Amino acid sequence: MNENIEIIAGGICAVSDVKANGVRSGKYGLTIISFPKSNVAGVFTTNKIVAAPVIHTKEIIKNNKISAIVANSGNANCFTGNNGLNDCQEMIKSTSFGLNITEDEIAIASTGVIGRKMPMDIINELIKENIPKLENSNEASINSAKAIMTTDTFYKEFAVEIKLNNGEKVKIGAICKGVGMIAPNMATLLCFIATDAKIEDEQALKNSLKIAVNKSLNMLVVDGDESTNDEVLLIATGKVNVLNDNVIDSNFQEGLNFLAVSLAKMMATDGEGATKFLEVTVTGASTEEDAKLVSKSVISSSLVKTAVFGEDPNWGRIVCAMGYSGADFNPDNVSISISAGETGVYLVKNSEILGFQGTENLLKAEEIMKNDEIKIYIDLHLGNEKATAFGCDLSYDYVKINAEYTS
Amino acid sequence: MNENIEIIAGGICAVSDVKANGVRSGKYGLTIISFPKSNVAGVFTTNKIVAAPVIHTKEIIKNNKISAIVANSGNANCFTGNNGLNDCQEMIKSTSFGLNITEDEIAIASTGVIGRKMPMDIINELIKENIPKLENSNEASINSAKAIMTTDTFYKEFAVEIKLNNGEKVKIGAICKGVGMIAPNMATLLCFIATDAKIEDEQALKNSLKIAVNKSLNMLVVDGDESTNDEVLLIATGKVNVLNDNVIDSNFQEGLNFLAVSLAKMMATDGEGATKFLEVTVTGASTEEDAKLVSKSVISSSLVKTAVFGEDPNWGRIVCAMGYSGADFNPDNVSISISAGETGVYLVKNSEILGFQGTENLLKAEEIMKNDEIKIYIDLHLGNEKATAFGCDLSYDYVKINAEYTS
Repeated sequence: MNENIEIIAGGICAVSDVKANGVRSGKYGLTIISFPKSNVAGVFTTNKIVAAPVIHTKEIIKNNKISAIVANSGNANCFTGNNGLNDCQEMIKSTSFGLNITEDEIAIASTGVIGRKMPMDIINELIKENIPKLENSNEASINSAKAIMTTDTFYKEFAVEIKLNNGEKVKIGAICKGVGMIAPNMATLLCFIATDAKIEDEQALKNSLKIAVNKSLNMLVVDGDESTNDEVLLIATGKVNVLNDNVIDSNFQEGLNFLAVSLAKMMATDGEGATKFLEVTVTGASTEEDAKLVSKSVISSSLVKTAVFGEDPNWGRIVCAMGYSGADFNPDNVSISISAGETGVYLVKNSEILGFQGTENLLKAEEIMKNDEIKIYIDLHLGNEKATAFGCDLSYDYVKINAEYTS
Repeated sequence: MNENIEIIAGGICAVSDVKANGVRSGKYGLTIISFPKSNVAGVFTTNKIVAAPVIHTKEIIKNNKISAIVANSGNANCFTGNNGLNDCQEMIKSTSFGLNITEDEIAIASTGVIGRKMPMDIINELIKENIPKLENSNEASINSAKAIMTTDTFYKEFAVEIKLNNGEKVKIGAICKGVGMIAPNMATLLCFIATDAKIEDEQALKNSLKIAVNKSLNMLVVDGDESTNDEVLLIATGKVNVLNDNVIDSNFQEGLNFLAVSLAKMMATDGEGATKFLEVTVTGASTEEDAKLVSKSVISSSLVKTAVFGEDPNWGRIVCAMGYSGADFNPDNVSISISAGETGVYLVKNSEILGFQGTENLLKAEEIMKNDEIKIYIDLHLGNEKATAFGCDLSYDYVKINAEYTS
């Protein structure tokens, strides 16, 4: 890890200007994050079916300034037509009134079942209940992270302090909820990140977020079903300047990347039914795009995922998934190794098979597969580009969680 | 069904010039199909990692004439380098000697574990044992179909007799093995089709096969992992002319399509761990490509597949999978219905939700989901193009089959 990045406590409230809290009522939860008017950037689902709160928030952040985020769990407010947009408006009205801010400063997000009317009486009650409780504390961050959970099995928050190149310090804090399904109708990913950095240039803020998301949340695969509600927001409260000649401080960017990757890893670990965390790193690719194609293809493969669940170092399935990735590589010169902790072993080296049945390498690989965190390394021996994807195994419990619910 | 197409007995031996048989020894099986020198066309895996027999057969069929097909199960002969190509040569030599035909008339195929040396002593023995047993009988077709099985739970053969537009009759017969994994390292699909039709024009034969495969085997999804060994061969023995001015008789094409779709449905039904057959038909698309994108996206979705396993008419997951398909459609005007047998019900009509909780439609849908064969219909209300995809649910047994094996 970069010596200029330090993991700190506090979650999203590690940033001193941020107040937050979350409350729940039965299967519904409600989180509010409030802060002085801040610059904002967002990354949203590319699904053609887009939930009402995503439609709304995309519009709102065009102003480039918000001062609150309201998010509910339990209902996705998706495929709900004009009613859905009206319900968004009502959520915003309640929050605007309670926080005494204008409606165009409020971003919203939802996670939960698709195609059901929002229970606005409950949501409005939760907003009213939540507003007086907002505060800047680690407990408040934890409550916020808990209130957006669906089938997540643990709350997710993370924060870092970064020493900039000029010696000044800046913080980034976040909460997120992962790839569980609420009732469950979908995998929904919500992620809210705050920093006390000053990044007033809209494009610079957006680029910075995109770079981080492309290395982390966009490299995360649980079941390959892309949600209608994915929403990642980064707000910058503007205390510490991190722009020099419109270029973002490199340490800041690394810190943001590190935070986003840490959140992605938490979500992979908590993937539905997951018993093992899986990381696939591809090096030696001609292009970054090829490295991403190969790593995502391998981490998405049902056959690789079930092999990992079965603790089987089945490199044949890895080779097969590489082959249909669409990436450019030379089948006669690839290397594949797996590792856990400090132990690693080659299964294929320069396309020579070292992991035949009965070999020491295969026996060592079988031992490695018993660990909870498995890393697969693939070297394409073509160039210098690389990428890492994050995921998990495919277990009986994934099927159980997603089959045993009746709408 | 077209009144000019009749389902007949005999499998690949329904074509009178075809002799076949299959034998097994432990986990290895060997099938030989022999016939008078015939025109041939093939469709192969597009995986970048290609098994040695596929590399070989692609070359062989460039001559446009073969008189035998040899296929083994138990070992994929894939990622086996020059050894693998040598083993192909040895299989061909044994067959050439036994059948007294030249080596360049023999196509080969393999299905099984990736990255293991072929057990050539066993394979050569099986070839020797099999050759004297070749005959034209339904039993021989069944033996052939059985010897290429891997985790398939039943053998697969199909045959039709077609009345051409000029009143003449022509037959098509086939055997195939489906989307099971041998030991299991991969899903391998092998399909051998014979007809007594005369189609000497190389391109016409290839096009005819492609049309059929694009409507059937290329619309089949079990787990989305594309094999390194997929091989479909169509041989035409040349008895009955089906070409008029180089245009294939329309009834012949329909018969070939029907046969290929019937085989695809068998494979979907026998998908690993499958408890239910699933068919997704998309109509009203602007382009056939869009219809295919939507149907394949829905049938591939782990969330839709687990919902079907759980007998849950979860249309929200269908909408979600449509949304990330990449196809063009208007979210404000789609219809979704499901059916089984003669019973059907709308869940969404012109984007109005009819399948809300507690509605009669949803109750009816829940009853429908209890059947073994579920059909989902999606109307995009944009144009006249359509497509149908074939698949199955995702069950505990899929995970079991693919996790509980150790290489």
